[in-house]
Amino acid sequence: MNRIVTAPPAPARSAPLADRFTRIRRAMVDLAAPLSAEDCQIQSFADASPTKWHLAHVTWFFETFVLEPHAARFRAFDPAFRILFNSYYHGIGAQAPRAERGLVTRPTLAEVLVYRAHVDTGVQALLAERGGDAGIEALIELGLQHEQQHQELLLTDIKHAFSRHPLRPAYARRWPMASVRPQPVRWFGHEGGLVEAGHAPDLDGSFCFDNETPRHRTFLHPFEIASRPATHGDFLAFMEDGGYERPGLWLSMGWDWRRTGAREAPFYWHREDDRWRSHTLHGIVDIDPHTPICHLSYFEADAFARWSGARLPTESEWEHAARALPAGGGAGGPANFADRGAFHPLPQTGAVGAEPVQMFGDVWEWTQSAYLPYPGYRPLAGAVGEYNGKFMCNQFVLRGGSCATPAGHVRASYRNFFPPDAQWQFSGLRLARDVGG
Amino acid sequence: MNRIVTAPPAPARSAPLADRFTRIRRAMVDLAAPLSAEDCQIQSFADASPTKWHLAHVTWFFETFVLEPHAARFRAFDPAFRILFNSYYHGIGAQAPRAERGLVTRPTLAEVLVYRAHVDTGVQALLAERGGDAGIEALIELGLQHEQQHQELLLTDIKHAFSRHPLRPAYARRWPMASVRPQPVRWFGHEGGLVEAGHAPDLDGSFCFDNETPRHRTFLHPFEIASRPATHGDFLAFMEDGGYERPGLWLSMGWDWRRTGAREAPFYWHREDDRWRSHTLHGIVDIDPHTPICHLSYFEADAFARWSGARLPTESEWEHAARALPAGGGAGGPANFADRGAFHPLPQTGAVGAEPVQMFGDVWEWTQSAYLPYPGYRPLAGAVGEYNGKFMCNQFVLRGGSCATPAGHVRASYRNFFPPDAQWQFSGLRLARDVGG
Amino acid sequence: MNRIVTAPPAPARSAPLADRFTRIRRAMVDLAAPLSAEDCQIQSFADASPTKWHLAHVTWFFETFVLEPHAARFRAFDPAFRILFNSYYHGIGAQAPRAERGLVTRPTLAEVLVYRAHVDTGVQALLAERGGDAGIEALIELGLQHEQQHQELLLTDIKHAFSRHPLRPAYARRWPMASVRPQPVRWFGHEGGLVEAGHAPDLDGSFCFDNETPRHRTFLHPFEIASRPATHGDFLAFMEDGGYERPGLWLSMGWDWRRTGAREAPFYWHREDDRWRSHTLHGIVDIDPHTPICHLSYFEADAFARWSGARLPTESEWEHAARALPAGGGAGGPANFADRGAFHPLPQTGAVGAEPVQMFGDVWEWTQSAYLPYPGYRPLAGAVGEYNGKFMCNQFVLRGGSCATPAGHVRASYRNFFPPDAQWQFSGLRLARDVGG
Amino acid sequence: MNRIVTAPPAPARSAPLADRFTRIRRAMVDLAAPLSAEDCQIQSFADASPTKWHLAHVTWFFETFVLEPHAARFRAFDPAFRILFNSYYHGIGAQAPRAERGLVTRPTLAEVLVYRAHVDTGVQALLAERGGDAGIEALIELGLQHEQQHQELLLTDIKHAFSRHPLRPAYARRWPMASVRPQPVRWFGHEGGLVEAGHAPDLDGSFCFDNETPRHRTFLHPFEIASRPATHGDFLAFMEDGGYERPGLWLSMGWDWRRTGAREAPFYWHREDDRWRSHTLHGIVDIDPHTPICHLSYFEADAFARWSGARLPTESEWEHAARALPAGGGAGGPANFADRGAFHPLPQTGAVGAEPVQMFGDVWEWTQSAYLPYPGYRPLAGAVGEYNGKFMCNQFVLRGGSCATPAGHVRASYRNFFPPDAQWQFSGLRLARDVGG
Repeated sequence: MNRIVTAPPAPARSAPLADRFTRIRRAMVDLAAPLSAEDCQIQSFADASPTKWHLAHVTWFFETFVLEPHAARFRAFDPAFRILFNSYYHGIGAQAPRAERGLVTRPTLAEVLVYRAHVDTGVQALLAERGGDAGIEALIELGLQHEQQHQELLLTDIKHAFSRHPLRPAYARRWPMASVRPQPVRWFGHEGGLVEAGHAPDLDGSFCFDNETPRHRTFLHPFEIASRPATHGDFLAFMEDGGYERPGLWLSMGWDWRRTGAREAPFYWHREDDRWRSHTLHGIVDIDPHTPICHLSYFEADAFARWSGARLPTESEWEHAARALPAGGGAGGPANFADRGAFHPLPQTGAVGAEPVQMFGDVWEWTQSAYLPYPGYRPLAGAVGEYNGKFMCNQFVLRGGSCATPAGHVRASYRNFFPPDAQWQFSGLRLARDVGG
Repeated sequence: MNRIVTAPPAPARSAPLADRFTRIRRAMVDLAAPLSAEDCQIQSFADASPTKWHLAHVTWFFETFVLEPHAARFRAFDPAFRILFNSYYHGIGAQAPRAERGLVTRPTLAEVLVYRAHVDTGVQALLAERGGDAGIEALIELGLQHEQQHQELLLTDIKHAFSRHPLRPAYARRWPMASVRPQPVRWFGHEGGLVEAGHAPDLDGSFCFDNETPRHRTFLHPFEIASRPATHGDFLAFMEDGGYERPGLWLSMGWDWRRTGAREAPFYWHREDDRWRSHTLHGIVDIDPHTPICHLSYFEADAFARWSGARLPTESEWEHAARALPAGGGAGGPANFADRGAFHPLPQTGAVGAEPVQMFGDVWEWTQSAYLPYPGYRPLAGAVGEYNGKFMCNQFVLRGGSCATPAGHVRASYRNFFPPDAQWQFSGLRLARDVGG
Repeated sequence: MNRIVTAPPAPARSAPLADRFTRIRRAMVDLAAPLSAEDCQIQSFADASPTKWHLAHVTWFFETFVLEPHAARFRAFDPAFRILFNSYYHGIGAQAPRAERGLVTRPTLAEVLVYRAHVDTGVQALLAERGGDAGIEALIELGLQHEQQHQELLLTDIKHAFSRHPLRPAYARRWPMASVRPQPVRWFGHEGGLVEAGHAPDLDGSFCFDNETPRHRTFLHPFEIASRPATHGDFLAFMEDGGYERPGLWLSMGWDWRRTGAREAPFYWHREDDRWRSHTLHGIVDIDPHTPICHLSYFEADAFARWSGARLPTESEWEHAARALPAGGGAGGPANFADRGAFHPLPQTGAVGAEPVQMFGDVWEWTQSAYLPYPGYRPLAGAVGEYNGKFMCNQFVLRGGSCATPAGHVRASYRNFFPPDAQWQFSGLRLARDVGG
Repeated sequence: MNRIVTAPPAPARSAPLADRFTRIRRAMVDLAAPLSAEDCQIQSFADASPTKWHLAHVTWFFETFVLEPHAARFRAFDPAFRILFNSYYHGIGAQAPRAERGLVTRPTLAEVLVYRAHVDTGVQALLAERGGDAGIEALIELGLQHEQQHQELLLTDIKHAFSRHPLRPAYARRWPMASVRPQPVRWFGHEGGLVEAGHAPDLDGSFCFDNETPRHRTFLHPFEIASRPATHGDFLAFMEDGGYERPGLWLSMGWDWRRTGAREAPFYWHREDDRWRSHTLHGIVDIDPHTPICHLSYFEADAFARWSGARLPTESEWEHAARALPAGGGAGGPANFADRGAFHPLPQTGAVGAEPVQMFGDVWEWTQSAYLPYPGYRPLAGAVGEYNGKFMCNQFVLRGGSCATPAGHVRASYRNFFPPDAQWQFSGLRLARDVGG
């Protein structure tokens, strides 16, 4: 049984899927619109990828996993792309070196856009012909989810690239944004006990990645979780209290990381005339204390939580707390996903009522859970099984999506993951604490 | 409340503790006996320490945490040692650089032995005076447990050091050891359900480290565990089947590790006239296929398990399976701890009966569990709280002790931990698998 | 006195200089014509620069050293370029990081071409207004010589960049080129004695770089020099004789370089179906044994010379031997400079007569001379004095120009210099030997 | 013809040579006397060697090059030493890794001393039997000269090792030493012209290394040289004038070295309560402004010279200026070589008269000459030819010996050499300048 879609799609879905395909594929080209061919070419550090590569790789994914096996008449756009735009699928064959994606000047951006059109045509033809085939539709859906992930990476990677340009260009200057003073943190208690975790089709929608399965029982101890993410202002208080100078607040590995890197503030910050400023997708701006803190490593999030007399939530706690909430936003209005166009975390709007706010959107929230398989986890069969499982080592889980995540992409069971020193994502945190402990 | 000893010691314990102190302190000097002053000086890689440093550091631990705060008349042997032999306790003050311990030529080995005698006298005097004081006895017990850990490291570190000497000297040549063909693997099933995990004084004895606490509930899914650890013969079959050349068997990070290091066999192995040989504490010997495989990284253990169609156990599964077994050995005779003097894993002796064998001793067994805090975990108060908690990042848990572990040191709830690329410990594995999956 | 031009230019020179300016500036844009905006963006290793950067930096040179101080009405195209395109002139101010030139996506290639036009206009206006001003003309001439140097680097850098592309694109496919078997090496003897070295306006033309001055006396011992550069065929004989495996042939530092890099052939070579092939500006081609060997490090050139029972010439010997020869080519026809469009060393044509052949063009020839100041050397005053002098450390002198050097750029006294491990230039060698020794 | 000794030794020399052998061999053991077995074991950075290794390697030299080929009845002390104590002679066979000499714990120091005695006996027996054999005596002389070089390295290497010990132990505390204010620098002029350079038996004594040959003509331009080496006080003036912050004073490679290493003072200096102090073989001491500056890299010496409006001398200039002076000291008393026991440069004593002072002893003086072969240079035949020639790349020549050089070891033609970033030798400088320039 195909594990990507846990509930069978209705036969009538193909027309919506064709529309959805068009819409999501178009969104990615739109994200690249403010960029020149030169901007799209470069790779500013080994973990990032060029915009052009993102545009091509997600296309390669459809070509390789959808069209080649299922579209009899499909002709590869260029056989060399099989290697050039394979990311890490050993099951497919060789890959160009990951750290040298920025050296692949050919095909040009223009040619990649033609490649996209070629594959788009192929997928639409396949959908027209075999719409309703659950296996094919599941693969296309996987491809779209994959593309949405790369849309987020496109934004975080170009943000990084521009941070290395001496003139710090802006991706889209729409600053300042209205600022609202957030309310003090409140705590929401949970009793714990034996609960269900992992993807639940009735709650989360039919699609999920394999790493969210199987749904399984787990035991939670009583805990409380904060009403909102920690803000830039909260984090400045940590800094002013010597947070970066006190080894007792840090994991041993975190302290080494801090010291060898001489870090004394979050990524993208710099000091200017006695105040902190920050590189954003809007260019260099002043720190707004009321917005959720972002670009923290796990080490910084963990140290901040310890300084706060609290801790990070486990991923099960986070998921349990988020279960009742709508992923698209709650009482405080629609969540701040990429479609809002803010490309930066926004301050809390509206009062906190009966439930936490900003669990979805704004910033990914570090949890204290290592990224490991759920009990009984099995990767997808075939090369596509390399999607998630092989990365389950030395990474931590983040939850909830960010201001760079496409709307509709995440859900309560969604597991993002990064190594503890990663900072270039919109990564922040929400505090938790034991009850009774 | 002091969290080290969870059951209060009886007042009459001081005489036995004094004897135990003498015995364990003496054991460490005995382990250094085959070594020259030069052997004791060197540090062959950054994670290892010189024998001399081990001898001094464990002594520093008693001086710093027992005598300074509790022995009014005690005079420090040399105030400079406070820095020289502090490992990583920021709460105590500065430390000499970890990677340069091999450059601390002064004090000499002879002076360190005098230092040991000085502190021994101090501790015995304190015990004579204030025997029965639960807090003091708990700290002394912690110091002894700490010393036992360093006894194991002394052996693994000198093994590494000798492996870098062009002539590969032997620490203690007692080879060959009788070899017995082990029986085929059998599987022992467990039903799972809500179980208790963590240190249980009635089952594990009164002492434990803080990372084994608190005892807590966790939910296990049904699983099976192998009757014995994987052997060198099992691992050779993996190698002969191309195990080191098939990326699909490896974690992504493991595959990178394998490739950048051009690894094609376990640590300490080399090819000689078409057969594999290995550096041991007995010098260079042939591979004995019937002994438990050791010096595996987590990456290799994980890849081997995947190749076997199984997986590594979680630490809770391992602990649950070990609960019924005596830590000192079972039906198959006494466990192979350091006191046996083999300093190498030994083949299974005797038939497997109603329970797994060799869970204690021989080799530390990698689990698939990241080293993280138990729910409600709190480190000890004060500098001694840096013992465990601050290392909970990017490490995996190993269980059961090895042929280099002092007898009586480990228990079912004992959590050892190393990064996934560590190989210089006696680290192996035991397979597990899902039931029903 | 201005040291660039040692003979004063005639007042009538401005019209020719304006033409020369147009021609040389145009040549560089022509060299970039086969490249896309993406090709022009990248930097494939730290010592190389993007094509776009070359195009901008040489323009910055005119703007900074000619227009800013001398053209009253000139307005900087963009003040930010002062930093973006400064290479290493501390006297001018800050510089963008050398290794991150590939990250400067803005300005785009198109904008850089506009920048070039803006500065071209400025220089032509200045020449029209103040033509005949010796100081200004000397600076313009320096700028043109500088631009010619970067024309060569443009070619060698894009050659390197394309070597890192998985598909190895060609810059200009004009292969195969006619091949002629060269004649055996003959030796030309020189008596030595007290000779003059360094730039001689009457022999070398009026322009020179400061590192060619002052003309000075030096003492040469009797020597012989080979009639032609060593060829690919000569070097293959060295390889077949185990040249890369015999430490006795190598400098100690060269042997370490060879071993740590596992080098067994010149740069850009790879083995394919039992024969050697090479990456060129024409794509991948077979080795042509009759062409001068190129892309050798000093280490390889030195080892080859030792294997040949000879040595590299000193730079004074080379210069002395080249004195009588026309830099544009001799009996064998015009020299193979970049204007020929071969972009690869060509085989010797015509018989060797009374003098060595191919001393100019084809390949730069390593000498055994460290790059050091001549007796009495003084750098130019001001920031432009950073051009040469500050690099006089751990580099070796090469002479004669290559197939990537613009025609008319080099002369007998011209000193090129690179570190001994540099391979990405068209660097080869010509043998020399002692007489009587 | 054997090139080591250019004048044949008289037959009667064997008794003096036997005495000389005893005396020099004894001197090295004496230098190690203040050190423990642990001190003698360690290697504090890759370019240094353990004291024990020095003691063994020089012994290996006699065993390998003197006894094995010439003493028929000699039996190797331990065949494994052939590899363990070979430094870099590929002609002899394999070598233990250079950077891991500190890991060779066996043989122990005691065993190495026995090894020394074994070889001493062998050499004395050979001398008794075949005394007067010019070839054998030349090899023994070479071995003694070699041993003297390692005596200097023993001191500089242990100085470095102690600098890495947190307590900075002293090798021999004899401080303070009498300080005398040196006189102002005076300049001694030389006319230049065609001169002879290289080893001259009648002036320099019969022994020399091959790199001092052949004696050859070279042309000197008029120059002046300073009466004394630059002092700590001179260098402090450079520092106070911002010498470490002005890129215009530095070679490009030197500036990078300074910046990436965040260097702001000479090696071994540190700031303490607003004054500079320095690690010496006498422990930590205050800077004495009147002593010659030492532990400079070439980069620092060169920048200081440029700041002084002068330059470093070439090696030919230095040699020419030193020709008339006695190597053992002049008007100002005996030179400060290691036999004085100061192990630190001493202030000038006595007035400067008709000639420069302190050209021999105190500090090695950097010259601006790259270490390259003299015209017509040929290395010795056989493995011993690896002694010098293969290091002629990316090193600079130093002249004159230092306070760690054994008396009688150097002469005017002696060429020492180190890479430009080397600092752990007693390396300083003496200024020179052009005349008329």
